[in-house]
Amino acid sequence: MVPHLVTALNGPLLDLEKKILGATPAIERWFRMEWQEHTPPFYCSVDLRNSGFKLAPVDTNLFPGGFNNLSPEMLPLAVQAAMAAIEKYCPDAKNLLLLPELHTRNTFYLQNVARLIQIFRQTGLHVRLGSLSDDLKEPHTIELPDGTTLTLEPLERSPNGRRLGVKNFDPCTILLNNDLSSGIPPILENLNEQNLLPPLHAGWTVRRKSNHFAAYDEVVKKFSKLVDVDPWMLNPFFSKCDQIDFKEHVGEDKLAASVSSLLAKIRKKYKEYGIKEKPFVIVKADAGTYGMSVMSVTDASQIKELSRKQREKMAVGKEGIEVHDLIIQEGVHTFEHINDAVAEPVVYMIDRYVIGGFYRVHAERGINENLNAPGAHYVPLAFAQQHALPDLLAKPGTTAPNRFYMYGVVARLGLLAASLEMEKTDPNPEIY
Amino acid sequence: MVPHLVTALNGPLLDLEKKILGATPAIERWFRMEWQEHTPPFYCSVDLRNSGFKLAPVDTNLFPGGFNNLSPEMLPLAVQAAMAAIEKYCPDAKNLLLLPELHTRNTFYLQNVARLIQIFRQTGLHVRLGSLSDDLKEPHTIELPDGTTLTLEPLERSPNGRRLGVKNFDPCTILLNNDLSSGIPPILENLNEQNLLPPLHAGWTVRRKSNHFAAYDEVVKKFSKLVDVDPWMLNPFFSKCDQIDFKEHVGEDKLAASVSSLLAKIRKKYKEYGIKEKPFVIVKADAGTYGMSVMSVTDASQIKELSRKQREKMAVGKEGIEVHDLIIQEGVHTFEHINDAVAEPVVYMIDRYVIGGFYRVHAERGINENLNAPGAHYVPLAFAQQHALPDLLAKPGTTAPNRFYMYGVVARLGLLAASLEMEKTDPNPEIY
Repeated sequence: MVPHLVTALNGPLLDLEKKILGATPAIERWFRMEWQEHTPPFYCSVDLRNSGFKLAPVDTNLFPGGFNNLSPEMLPLAVQAAMAAIEKYCPDAKNLLLLPELHTRNTFYLQNVARLIQIFRQTGLHVRLGSLSDDLKEPHTIELPDGTTLTLEPLERSPNGRRLGVKNFDPCTILLNNDLSSGIPPILENLNEQNLLPPLHAGWTVRRKSNHFAAYDEVVKKFSKLVDVDPWMLNPFFSKCDQIDFKEHVGEDKLAASVSSLLAKIRKKYKEYGIKEKPFVIVKADAGTYGMSVMSVTDASQIKELSRKQREKMAVGKEGIEVHDLIIQEGVHTFEHINDAVAEPVVYMIDRYVIGGFYRVHAERGINENLNAPGAHYVPLAFAQQHALPDLLAKPGTTAPNRFYMYGVVARLGLLAASLEMEKTDPNPEIY
Repeated sequence: MVPHLVTALNGPLLDLEKKILGATPAIERWFRMEWQEHTPPFYCSVDLRNSGFKLAPVDTNLFPGGFNNLSPEMLPLAVQAAMAAIEKYCPDAKNLLLLPELHTRNTFYLQNVARLIQIFRQTGLHVRLGSLSDDLKEPHTIELPDGTTLTLEPLERSPNGRRLGVKNFDPCTILLNNDLSSGIPPILENLNEQNLLPPLHAGWTVRRKSNHFAAYDEVVKKFSKLVDVDPWMLNPFFSKCDQIDFKEHVGEDKLAASVSSLLAKIRKKYKEYGIKEKPFVIVKADAGTYGMSVMSVTDASQIKELSRKQREKMAVGKEGIEVHDLIIQEGVHTFEHINDAVAEPVVYMIDRYVIGGFYRVHAERGINENLNAPGAHYVPLAFAQQHALPDLLAKPGTTAPNRFYMYGVVARLGLLAASLEMEKTDPNPEIY
């Protein structure tokens, strides 16, 4: 089950949606069984694209920012899910240390941190903020627009070197909200006595999108059998391409060939289903994030015709890290709009629970472009006002059709894929 | 943590509230640890009385009706908690059989049943209604005021006699919403292959309030050490008195002596704390429910002066069952009002989660009377609109004081007591 939310798309239910709504009991049971075998990530957000004929996750974030964009009505759900998560890792937890990103001037990000603190405070934990910056030697207090403050504190290892905390604060659980794009800080290594969540190999130093989508292939294969749909309806094709150097024109032919072959596969599927849209692929860093190093391509020739500026943009990711490994992903048009702007849903989960979502909306982007770019804004998904009692004689799922339910299902497929991905890429697999 | 709700009492925070809010992290941790040792009831509602100087549960219902009185905003929380509960008992559950009370003409109760069905449907279960009435031979459909319907079906044991279901429906879990006041139906006995929740000994055939409050004594003893308060602040004195026959004037002296001695204990406490209110006790059936066989007494002499009508009222409980065993409980004034009517909060829980609550309001009753009586109405507790971000430098709990938090804590003390009570009174204790 997922919260009953209003979505922007109000057209008739599509075949895929009907099948998923109709199979609700089977789907929920399947998820329950899968969570007996696999541990969900502590938290996660999934970007979805709904093209009408296809619904797919295009990005699964294991260090979600943007909790501030969720409707405040969602807080109790988030807190209840956080209670369940904390109970699993550390039932006797008192103290939680949160390690945020270093964007101390990004007010939106800081509001996300404040919201996370609020959620964990309400579960009954003491929460303090540690800084991964080596330059921070004293506590640093930042004022937020609403007049409240956040205090970042320097990290300290315990005298025996085995535990991490801040001054006079020994946490049971350390929660990363920093995606480790610029490497694993030595201060986070060899912490065997505390829960470090998500684990270090979830950070972009180690993580690869191609591993995630390989795990997603597996998940969707099982799921699509269960609901009897073509797995492609839920899954974008992808391939990976490494050892690329955009600045030096290294590997362009290889990349163009990959793009060309993926576009051919998509065209074939479009023909099979009579889809008239123009196929496109997204080329992006295999380890990238923050909407950086992303481009939308409709023809392989575009790869060779990139301008100097475009090359430079693709070559460098978050925090100036050079990009050499790429993933080429089937583009999924988004057919959702809010007013006249293109929108895509982002679904938030804590542990195995969907706790809310919002629309990422971009007025200046097209239906085949990345919306995670400057100029995007966020519209919380609100609870639907309709709470009709069900008709006992109606078939399950046919009353009160809830489009957001499907988003919650597909987002949880991404969550499950992330769980498998973390198991498979774990450098110390014996802990599972 | 409990949902952040608006309460009717808006005065300054009292000492007890301040202590409980201040100890939030210790309290939440304590509950987490207790739930590692004890299994919470599947669902539960707790009636509270807040006298300003004292806050206590006065009744803990293991077959809660009234889910229809919760605000619809609470549904997602209820569904999430129900998912956690189902996962615990039967992760591969497909089918849930709900066994309601036989009040098929009580529209309010039927709306409660419809709401429960809605909650469990949204967790992804197939739900059907079985009838405990021997007279029901064919499915019986009842129309609700909103035009939807409920269908009660005759119960069936499987051909080998080991499972219970309805036609073509084999449930994994059977959920009782019938308190078994009139005895344990033979059709519910010896069901060893399915989860029967709550267990049979939670029904009023076996259950005694005095066992519950004895378990509550234990819980409060530990809790009041944790938060450093006099346990009496959270706990009404009680004693029990059996072999009473109101109709035949049997045991009246014994009962009057018990009342007198309990009133003396309360007077002593009132003196100690300088409380000017008039002490009273509630005399009620030890196995009773539905607000029947309850009276409020301020002087032992009242026991001997009962009118014939009053005697008859006390002698017979729900479904005409004779009452011989009584519990005498310290009365707790309720100082909450909605408009001019006296109100008491009722808190609802599923598994270990507080999912909402409402006020039971009675315009014609006094602050020292039972409000669970004809003429009561129900006002849902709504989420508070205030969701201020916390000040990191403030002590935990001092920002955004939330009176409902305390209600959630005390209700969960009742929940934990019910868990201990069920363990202690289990006829087959090896299952724990």
